[in-house]
Amino acid sequence: MSASALLKSRVRRPSYLKKLAKAEDLIHHFPNGTYIGWSGFTGVGYPKMIPNALADHVQTNSLEGKLKYNLFVGASAGADTESRWAHLNMIERRSPHQVGKEIAKGINTGHIKFFDKHLSMFPSDLVYGWYTLNKPKPTIDVAIIEATAITEDGGIIPGASVGASPELIQMAEKVIIEVNTAMPSFEGLHDITGTDLPPFRKPYLVTRPDDRIGTTYIPVDPEKVVAIVESDYADKTTHNSPEDEGSQAIASNLIEFLQHEVKHGRLPTNLLPIQSGIGNIANAVVGGLSKGGADFKNLTVWTEVLQDAFLDLFDSGNLDFATATSIRLSPDGFKRFYANWDRYAPKILLRSQQVSNSPEIIRRLGCIGMNTPVEVDIYAHANSTCVMGSRMLNGLGGSADFLRNSKYSIMHTPSARPTKTDPTGVSCIVPFATHIDQTEHDLDVIVTEQGLADVRGLSPRERARVIIKHCSHPDYTPILTDYLDRAEFECLRKGMGHEPHMLFQAFNMHKNLQEKGTMKIDSWE
Amino acid sequence: MSASALLKSRVRRPSYLKKLAKAEDLIHHFPNGTYIGWSGFTGVGYPKMIPNALADHVQTNSLEGKLKYNLFVGASAGADTESRWAHLNMIERRSPHQVGKEIAKGINTGHIKFFDKHLSMFPSDLVYGWYTLNKPKPTIDVAIIEATAITEDGGIIPGASVGASPELIQMAEKVIIEVNTAMPSFEGLHDITGTDLPPFRKPYLVTRPDDRIGTTYIPVDPEKVVAIVESDYADKTTHNSPEDEGSQAIASNLIEFLQHEVKHGRLPTNLLPIQSGIGNIANAVVGGLSKGGADFKNLTVWTEVLQDAFLDLFDSGNLDFATATSIRLSPDGFKRFYANWDRYAPKILLRSQQVSNSPEIIRRLGCIGMNTPVEVDIYAHANSTCVMGSRMLNGLGGSADFLRNSKYSIMHTPSARPTKTDPTGVSCIVPFATHIDQTEHDLDVIVTEQGLADVRGLSPRERARVIIKHCSHPDYTPILTDYLDRAEFECLRKGMGHEPHMLFQAFNMHKNLQEKGTMKIDSWE
Repeated sequence: MSASALLKSRVRRPSYLKKLAKAEDLIHHFPNGTYIGWSGFTGVGYPKMIPNALADHVQTNSLEGKLKYNLFVGASAGADTESRWAHLNMIERRSPHQVGKEIAKGINTGHIKFFDKHLSMFPSDLVYGWYTLNKPKPTIDVAIIEATAITEDGGIIPGASVGASPELIQMAEKVIIEVNTAMPSFEGLHDITGTDLPPFRKPYLVTRPDDRIGTTYIPVDPEKVVAIVESDYADKTTHNSPEDEGSQAIASNLIEFLQHEVKHGRLPTNLLPIQSGIGNIANAVVGGLSKGGADFKNLTVWTEVLQDAFLDLFDSGNLDFATATSIRLSPDGFKRFYANWDRYAPKILLRSQQVSNSPEIIRRLGCIGMNTPVEVDIYAHANSTCVMGSRMLNGLGGSADFLRNSKYSIMHTPSARPTKTDPTGVSCIVPFATHIDQTEHDLDVIVTEQGLADVRGLSPRERARVIIKHCSHPDYTPILTDYLDRAEFECLRKGMGHEPHMLFQAFNMHKNLQEKGTMKIDSWE
Repeated sequence: MSASALLKSRVRRPSYLKKLAKAEDLIHHFPNGTYIGWSGFTGVGYPKMIPNALADHVQTNSLEGKLKYNLFVGASAGADTESRWAHLNMIERRSPHQVGKEIAKGINTGHIKFFDKHLSMFPSDLVYGWYTLNKPKPTIDVAIIEATAITEDGGIIPGASVGASPELIQMAEKVIIEVNTAMPSFEGLHDITGTDLPPFRKPYLVTRPDDRIGTTYIPVDPEKVVAIVESDYADKTTHNSPEDEGSQAIASNLIEFLQHEVKHGRLPTNLLPIQSGIGNIANAVVGGLSKGGADFKNLTVWTEVLQDAFLDLFDSGNLDFATATSIRLSPDGFKRFYANWDRYAPKILLRSQQVSNSPEIIRRLGCIGMNTPVEVDIYAHANSTCVMGSRMLNGLGGSADFLRNSKYSIMHTPSARPTKTDPTGVSCIVPFATHIDQTEHDLDVIVTEQGLADVRGLSPRERARVIIKHCSHPDYTPILTDYLDRAEFECLRKGMGHEPHMLFQAFNMHKNLQEKGTMKIDSWE
């Protein structure tokens, strides 16, 4: 196979060009049960050609459920690949995070063995051998990594994400590189480090978001590279969910809080490095920081994923530097990013997820961490993953990396969500979270469109009063207050009132939801 | 007041001797509502004279409930001071950890506002001002710190613990030093660092347990020192709870696992730095490492508290170095330690709790973290603090600092505990933990006297099978299996089977316990 001029311009290692292959000719590397690693994070930088060739192979030969793989990706890959694999029942095991209806369906019906893990921890646990305990050789059989260029040494220049690629490559027996020529080379945008085994791990010498501690490429042992494939289509992303009145109210409450903290000298005037999750509330918060009223200058960002709103924040002149493991923009966002590359690129750095989500660095920098939960309970335990305690949404992601270690650990959520029959049928403030990913020991602030609860330094009973008062939807305030009053009365009387619960009624609101389509119960009797 | 020769030999700062006072003459520094910081951690290194003088003052003048304080101590202080304060209703607010029946009673009956916090995080949150938000001046009014000597610069040489003293002093308006002349000077045994505010925090440059990064004393601004008091009695500690058959069986299962890990190349032959909690299981595990069968040489320890068992481990020749924030020995243990100071001291270093429990360092070193929970659920969430979800025992301590960040995150517990009427009335393996401090994302191994569940890389449903099979008591294995079978059937059918629960029956075993004195339910119907 001969390489196109475009491909040659991206691949500076001549020996790799001799390994050029078509995706459909590489199927033999993937027998049933193969342990596969993909590059990619939040639907950018994932391999496209081989996953689709394998899916075609399964579909054409009716191998659904017969060719199944153990799939490890830093976080979510693209819907065009991962969802297709799930739909074709090609995934036996998956970790540590996923997005897409098909894959969630596979997980919740028992077809896919999924476990979610702190995104900072997944790469190191992988290198420790935790995920390959039962294999004869503790390796990833094949890593499929998307590159936007290849260095003279054979190193990989990733695209819009780094994720767990350094560690997947480190653990791989074979590496297949998809060189994407439909996107520009991202060379210079990355800062790459690998993972040493204890007792030989070293400090991450990062004290500012713009510190570089690694290489601009992922080092690869060239002998591991069994093939390169040219990839001819770009990351398929979707549009952002728009801000609404609720998310703007939440953002406004939050920004007022940050101003209050600056005024009292607990935050510098340029704040501290910001971490912001994904979704419309996060967009509204970051959006709010670019507007005149907020008046924060020289901001920096230390986060997991950069979204479109950060481009606005750059354009407002308020943002000096942003670093993450992924830059996940909408189709329009990527156009804008590429068209203004020289303006944005010097202010952005992409790192491995082990570094972007590193407890060490997050704590040192004193980040302001902000995330959205499924539900928060009155004592400030939060559910980030499992609806009704059982149904997996996407996984833990980096929420606990940031909420445990940030200086300010903030959760933002609407106070209530609609059901089919009740516009406020679900209260996001509940007596007892049905699944707990973040504990009471990890949250400082909870904010809804109703208001903001600052629970720093409060005992559980004080905390519960403040959360119910400031955050709950008025439809639920009396119900939650009644729960707390009764639980307090019962537990204090029995000398077990530190964190009062009526344990055997604690999920009654959820039961009512399941049976009647609303959490509005008549009474706690 | 003139200083004794003994006191002069300990206080190398002459100006401090001019501030020598009697404890009973310092009462005026402590009006109602004072924010007070004490040195101390796990009942060693706490101040004795002033707390008792204040208690005498309250008792003599019938001021119970009228003179109440906000009390911050790194972890637990001595029973002779803290419990006495609790008994006299002198504690308004308390954080982040406590031990003692009287104080637990005060907390659980609503007289003491208590919140527990990660011990690594308490000192930094204190410096950030989180615990003094509502004070006109965001300071600790008075810090009372026990010293075993004073340097020429006025710096404090602590005794058997460092805890949060550096940060309590940093935040204090006034410092009172109790110089304890009844114990030897601990000079040289400490490595002290303070806490900078972000964005000026720096890496902790520790890559081995014996690395020094600080000073041998706690720096103090001499102008803050309002008085020194001579203290004439030593730390009052109690004897260790003895190993029993169950704890030895747990230790034996654990040591077999560590040998297995070495054999498979996932651990070096000298293991990795060990963290061990407090109690008879921890003692049995550490004890097991000193015996011939285990055969691990050149061990190191990175932990929160050193107990008597570590002296045996030193004596066995298997332990090279141990570092912690406290050395809490039994009365006999301290005698042995002092008698062999020159042998033990060069192999021990005491650090601040922010460093001993630092996520940054624990993750870098790849510690083996081992702790005992109240209960663990079938999906590997664990309760470390609140019995029946509500009644506080001691607090979170450093359990989550270590379990989140260790390379090996291990919980050990008896499979069942007795009630008044049933020798196995409480199962420590339950369907749903009634309070969650450690999440499923943080545990690798659960071990009981029945066996060991290695849950690394397992999905929740796989995890539950393994935990029930290997860890549950035979009396409960069928009950827990039945729960899981039913929950799986129901949830998979509904497409919500990632982590199957029967949410509204999940606490039925606990309900049965409350009503009938045993968790042995007849059926899940």
